[in-house]
Amino acid sequence: MAGNTHGTLFKLTTFGESHGKAIGGVIDGCPAGLTLDITAIQNDLDRRKPGQSAIVTQRKEPDEVEFFSGIFEGQTTGTPIGFAIHNTNQKSKDYSHIKDSYRPSHADYVYDEKYGLRDYRGGGRSSARETASRVVAGAIAKQFLAPVTINAYVSAVGTIQLDHDPSKVDLSQIENNPVRCPDAAVATEMENYIKAIRKEGDTVGGIVTCVIKDLPVGLGEPVFDKLHAELGKAMLSINAVKGFEYGSGFAGTQMKGSQHNDLFNTDASTKTNRSGGVQGGISNGMDIYFNVAFKPVATIMQNQETINSKGESVAMQGKGRHDPCVVPRAVPIVEAMAALVLADFKLLKRTNKI
Amino acid sequence: MAGNTHGTLFKLTTFGESHGKAIGGVIDGCPAGLTLDITAIQNDLDRRKPGQSAIVTQRKEPDEVEFFSGIFEGQTTGTPIGFAIHNTNQKSKDYSHIKDSYRPSHADYVYDEKYGLRDYRGGGRSSARETASRVVAGAIAKQFLAPVTINAYVSAVGTIQLDHDPSKVDLSQIENNPVRCPDAAVATEMENYIKAIRKEGDTVGGIVTCVIKDLPVGLGEPVFDKLHAELGKAMLSINAVKGFEYGSGFAGTQMKGSQHNDLFNTDASTKTNRSGGVQGGISNGMDIYFNVAFKPVATIMQNQETINSKGESVAMQGKGRHDPCVVPRAVPIVEAMAALVLADFKLLKRTNKI
Amino acid sequence: MAGNTHGTLFKLTTFGESHGKAIGGVIDGCPAGLTLDITAIQNDLDRRKPGQSAIVTQRKEPDEVEFFSGIFEGQTTGTPIGFAIHNTNQKSKDYSHIKDSYRPSHADYVYDEKYGLRDYRGGGRSSARETASRVVAGAIAKQFLAPVTINAYVSAVGTIQLDHDPSKVDLSQIENNPVRCPDAAVATEMENYIKAIRKEGDTVGGIVTCVIKDLPVGLGEPVFDKLHAELGKAMLSINAVKGFEYGSGFAGTQMKGSQHNDLFNTDASTKTNRSGGVQGGISNGMDIYFNVAFKPVATIMQNQETINSKGESVAMQGKGRHDPCVVPRAVPIVEAMAALVLADFKLLKRTNKI
Amino acid sequence: MAGNTHGTLFKLTTFGESHGKAIGGVIDGCPAGLTLDITAIQNDLDRRKPGQSAIVTQRKEPDEVEFFSGIFEGQTTGTPIGFAIHNTNQKSKDYSHIKDSYRPSHADYVYDEKYGLRDYRGGGRSSARETASRVVAGAIAKQFLAPVTINAYVSAVGTIQLDHDPSKVDLSQIENNPVRCPDAAVATEMENYIKAIRKEGDTVGGIVTCVIKDLPVGLGEPVFDKLHAELGKAMLSINAVKGFEYGSGFAGTQMKGSQHNDLFNTDASTKTNRSGGVQGGISNGMDIYFNVAFKPVATIMQNQETINSKGESVAMQGKGRHDPCVVPRAVPIVEAMAALVLADFKLLKRTNKI
Repeated sequence: MAGNTHGTLFKLTTFGESHGKAIGGVIDGCPAGLTLDITAIQNDLDRRKPGQSAIVTQRKEPDEVEFFSGIFEGQTTGTPIGFAIHNTNQKSKDYSHIKDSYRPSHADYVYDEKYGLRDYRGGGRSSARETASRVVAGAIAKQFLAPVTINAYVSAVGTIQLDHDPSKVDLSQIENNPVRCPDAAVATEMENYIKAIRKEGDTVGGIVTCVIKDLPVGLGEPVFDKLHAELGKAMLSINAVKGFEYGSGFAGTQMKGSQHNDLFNTDASTKTNRSGGVQGGISNGMDIYFNVAFKPVATIMQNQETINSKGESVAMQGKGRHDPCVVPRAVPIVEAMAALVLADFKLLKRTNKI
Repeated sequence: MAGNTHGTLFKLTTFGESHGKAIGGVIDGCPAGLTLDITAIQNDLDRRKPGQSAIVTQRKEPDEVEFFSGIFEGQTTGTPIGFAIHNTNQKSKDYSHIKDSYRPSHADYVYDEKYGLRDYRGGGRSSARETASRVVAGAIAKQFLAPVTINAYVSAVGTIQLDHDPSKVDLSQIENNPVRCPDAAVATEMENYIKAIRKEGDTVGGIVTCVIKDLPVGLGEPVFDKLHAELGKAMLSINAVKGFEYGSGFAGTQMKGSQHNDLFNTDASTKTNRSGGVQGGISNGMDIYFNVAFKPVATIMQNQETINSKGESVAMQGKGRHDPCVVPRAVPIVEAMAALVLADFKLLKRTNKI
Repeated sequence: MAGNTHGTLFKLTTFGESHGKAIGGVIDGCPAGLTLDITAIQNDLDRRKPGQSAIVTQRKEPDEVEFFSGIFEGQTTGTPIGFAIHNTNQKSKDYSHIKDSYRPSHADYVYDEKYGLRDYRGGGRSSARETASRVVAGAIAKQFLAPVTINAYVSAVGTIQLDHDPSKVDLSQIENNPVRCPDAAVATEMENYIKAIRKEGDTVGGIVTCVIKDLPVGLGEPVFDKLHAELGKAMLSINAVKGFEYGSGFAGTQMKGSQHNDLFNTDASTKTNRSGGVQGGISNGMDIYFNVAFKPVATIMQNQETINSKGESVAMQGKGRHDPCVVPRAVPIVEAMAALVLADFKLLKRTNKI
Repeated sequence: MAGNTHGTLFKLTTFGESHGKAIGGVIDGCPAGLTLDITAIQNDLDRRKPGQSAIVTQRKEPDEVEFFSGIFEGQTTGTPIGFAIHNTNQKSKDYSHIKDSYRPSHADYVYDEKYGLRDYRGGGRSSARETASRVVAGAIAKQFLAPVTINAYVSAVGTIQLDHDPSKVDLSQIENNPVRCPDAAVATEMENYIKAIRKEGDTVGGIVTCVIKDLPVGLGEPVFDKLHAELGKAMLSINAVKGFEYGSGFAGTQMKGSQHNDLFNTDASTKTNRSGGVQGGISNGMDIYFNVAFKPVATIMQNQETINSKGESVAMQGKGRHDPCVVPRAVPIVEAMAALVLADFKLLKRTNKI
């Protein structure tokens, strides 16, 4: 498995299983001279961590990051930044029941087939716990990208949808409620729905929208490494993601060209932004916005029929502490992946002209 | 611009502008010993080429591929396969009117900003003409992947949508009509709509669905290079694509976990396939299916206001020969990109175990 | 600095400064199912560590490796192997005298110029301490490569040269003396010379020879990633290395083709081995052997004139605990880098044919 | 075979066999806005081409390059530069005698083993003809690097060695004789020796030295992608190369640290240059110089015993038109590979600081 590195110049390599000693990673290519705000990094980790509110998993993990290298007297040195988040909550016994059984819509079976064995403790490498390492690296990337801003929020939980224009959303409201939806009334509705779902022992999906502001023109490397293509890959690499669309997205397929085209103002901004801030795979200076679709969490607190590694039918009882809906905690992960993509393209852009 | 290579082991690097001498590429990493069916390659090029039917652009380009290397006595030798498609239809004067003007929702402006200059003849590198090189490489990848099958088809044109279960579609019907929709009645409706749109001098978007059958378990390299993440990136790198979803996709966000989970049969196949053939970023042996959203073509045969490179407002007249709807010709491109992704993962899979 | 990853499929990314919290790395792409001999890994670390004999630096560092991930019940799982070696000997005050001064023939000056700042504690990232991480990964690579054997030894210290045919050296004698020279008499001579050099407060260079046996035919990826080219790069990436030659090497330039050509036996082995086991960049089944040239260590226990960061001339006093000759400790590093190169090519070879 | 790409940002991918339709390549990542001197490119090709003097192979190949893309109105556009050199001298019958036989010290046998088949016409992909593509790309890289200068010359032919200090050689003399040795008297001696060797039907090796001037401080990416490590790999990837050393090289292993260290002047230049312009893998602003060892060409005009693909002993008669000594034609190839390495590092350097 050589797929654990993201990026060409601003690179993140992660390691770690959900119930091993530690997860962590190496950030290689972060430019020298960046004064790091460590509190901001921990703040993003806290936005992702379990137990932060009543509507997420109640597992307790402090998720404190330890940096090993690459930072000296508060600044990045240009050398690789090694870090780890130690796993303090290794209740391996919780997972003994899945040692030989394959949970439906989980990766247990495919890992066993692909590698011939698997670390069966809590999903092992396939657990979303791994994304904490992405949040660390993304938080550093954000600091490198300033004054570019990257804000994600929950725009749908199940069938409850926020009616929103991403460029006009009041981003300051996002963190005011546990759902991370910028409209207080809709957020309450979503929160109640998630609580009801949890009581059923069930889970539900949702959509995270992300808005990027103040990005310069020129990021993205056609023809294969287009800006939106790398954003799409980065989002699809997050656990439970089933779809990605930017700008007009799937709805745009129903429009005519005469309706869809974004006409220019004389300062080269556009009167509309159906392009979502990207033309031909390159940022055009307008807001970038995109939607990320998350499926309902596969682990439910209900009994299910499944099979074991011998191909025998077995009953699987729902237990453990899991998220009824993943999108509130996915918000900082979406931002982190966007930041990693943009940091990489920011560096690549420096090489476009002689 | 260093973004012109796709893949890690089965690699395609493309070159070429729409109105330069030639487009083409190098396929590096195609394994040795593959007996090539050159006719099948040309056949896929013909499915993409202009002028093939009444509902696509009427430009005439033969799009014949010339191979320079890597093939000996009908077989691949394991050395790089260099090829070119010579541009025979270089009417540069057609494009003199856009030399100094930026077409709305085209890449003219961002190329000028990013590189400081651009080949203004017909879109240059940002033209979809480049995708012919992808079709060549994808056709070779398909032969390497056999007996895996990859079939794409048009599932929506504007608001006309095919009601379909991707695993049950009669794939043999796709090529029976110029739209490449496997339902004859819906295809006729789509065809008529495209003709009407063209008469208006307008364009319309659509959706291409792709189905992959008989893929073994185990393709995909978590955590960043998940199978669906690479498929998504590959699709989003195609001109005019605005979105990608696989399996239950965006609709899956509205489901509950108890509805969404795919329960196992005792042979490890699943009773349903909302996962779209991928679990945790790894193929699970079920059919893979995904949707690709294409926006309406930006070039319309109507007058539009725009700006020139000095930031002055100018009128732009629609002219030239362009596609009213891109999806019929996009079908082989979607298949080609899927084949390139799968060929790469097929090789990577060989390295998973000792 | 994005140069901290080695390999395409069997990949090592390292991090860490000599006097930071820890050094370490991530091994991504090690195939699943390898039963690890942890003792063998520590043994290679011990061969590299300071203080192991009277002729190396007397610093005390235990160099114990902690594994974070990728190993389960004694086997590799195919997921990334994260590890760290904690720095226990962080006497930062030892290095305060070089905070503002540039040591001759060290990297202090170029790091300051390249990055605008540097971790001045003991060489920081440019210290050879980083190579301990390579030894960890190389020891794992060796286990993956078995029954291929990789043995390095000291063949020259200053002007004292071993007269040897690499294919006939008794490799079992290498570890019998602190110099790691397989000839006891020459080893004693070298040892005495190193002791004399140390008394002078001086240092001396040397040559490490490496022999690889039982490697199959077919490793190496022309035209750029030839087997000997990657071996050469890997060796040249080790601190203090000034040259690399394989097979007949520089001496071969003086020969005629009729003398130099290796004639075949009917089993496709060759009667001579001036090719050094590589033809056209691909292993040919014969022993691979090569020489690696190490310069004398730049840190000497003598006073030297140098400059500070303001460009002022300053006196620099030799102090600290350093190696008088680096080659005895370089032996396991050379082996480790060779193992990493071969492990990568072993995996790549699986993709050569359909 | 996925080893046909060189570089991370300034990338060259080559294709082509010696007796196929064409050789060529794609340069991806050459920055936009470079006004190309096409004559200078052809001039470097002419320095490499066969038949240029009495001491090289007398084959006739014009080696004219055709550019397909990436250049518009005389300037690079930032898009990939595709090019081909058509093979006009495809006398395949010349090589029918090696169809089933393995030439000693050639790559015939290993290609057959690795790929299961080979293009047996004249060495196919393993022929040094491929290096013409490198010269094209290198000539463009040189123009990007100006005012940095890269000059290679022949410093040894067999046992005839030039006594030279690379920083003091009169580089203007190199092209004044067919050997490309900057000392006229030694050049004559070498020329006569090569002629004598050719009369014997034999071949001889030699050394090419390369000097790089006016390179800024800061190129090279430790720890694995050190400047000299990439230079070494690039040189070792050239056909027939057996060794690489820079600065003091192998001779430096015999020196003491007190002799070897380069002391600073107050402007940070050094009083001596045993480091060869590189410290810790990063350029230090002094001249870079290195030696490249070439073995004698394996094709000799004498009869040799060898084996065929069935493992039978067969006689092989020397015939064809080959170089008695490869170093005069290798000079522009060494320069080209150096230029590709430096162009890549020049771009990477732009990403070191925030």
